[in-house]
Amino acid sequence: MKILFDDNYFMGQAIAEAKKAYLEGEIPVGAIITIDQRIIARAHNLSEKLNDVTAHAEMQAITSASNFLNSKYLSNCTIYVTLEPCVMCMGALFWSKIERIVYAASDPKSGFRKRKVLTHPKTKISYGIREDESSNLLKAFFRAQRE
Amino acid sequence: MKILFDDNYFMGQAIAEAKKAYLEGEIPVGAIITIDQRIIARAHNLSEKLNDVTAHAEMQAITSASNFLNSKYLSNCTIYVTLEPCVMCMGALFWSKIERIVYAASDPKSGFRKRKVLTHPKTKISYGIREDESSNLLKAFFRAQRE
Repeated sequence: MKILFDDNYFMGQAIAEAKKAYLEGEIPVGAIITIDQRIIARAHNLSEKLNDVTAHAEMQAITSASNFLNSKYLSNCTIYVTLEPCVMCMGALFWSKIERIVYAASDPKSGFRKRKVLTHPKTKISYGIREDESSNLLKAFFRAQRE
Repeated sequence: MKILFDDNYFMGQAIAEAKKAYLEGEIPVGAIITIDQRIIARAHNLSEKLNDVTAHAEMQAITSASNFLNSKYLSNCTIYVTLEPCVMCMGALFWSKIERIVYAASDPKSGFRKRKVLTHPKTKISYGIREDESSNLLKAFFRAQRE
């Protein structure tokens, strides 16, 4: 199972969500949440459509996964997100006590690392998986915006 | 108008929201958002009821005010909240470009100040308004939880 459903596969699913955002004119960021190799939440950025700064992919995925599990804690879950989470999303992930965060591209401007946001001691972090795909999608979006 | 509807009055409205949370068994935090001395959003913490760590009073108030104004930016708004915002909420308030944040009690454990979260350069912050009322409500809640 791990051979078929690995980080690479799940990040691909998050990228598929990011592409939906792209097609809707949203900054293309997607996220999914898994538990035991199973996807329990899928979301993409909807800040423009909903006119809501809190509608980042991660926030919606957290709400959706909590709803699915009927638990506000996501202790045995992994979030796959195509861009490094911002301060808000990292704050939410802290509260959720999520087991693992995997992100593709880094966000040197608004990412949690630059702002030195504390991560939950129980949370492991990996990054760089399918980074180029995610980052090329973001670049294409902003290039199209400027044109 | 400023005599009738000042920070003290609006914080009283946020405290009324916090009391609703208290009665529902939620950590008693309330928030309201105003524009031109008019309340456009009221919310209280619903993390337990909704099983959702993102359901802090501030987050719901931001979504509600954005919905009311049909704008994701809250540039001319003030948020009154009974407790110092956490990292997640401060991250959301940063994105909203809100004009002013007024909070009652400080949160030395989970507040944004301890975690050194950046505030938006356009946002002014005041605190300590009706601090005792807000903090007594929180203390009473946690005392009751322990008993």
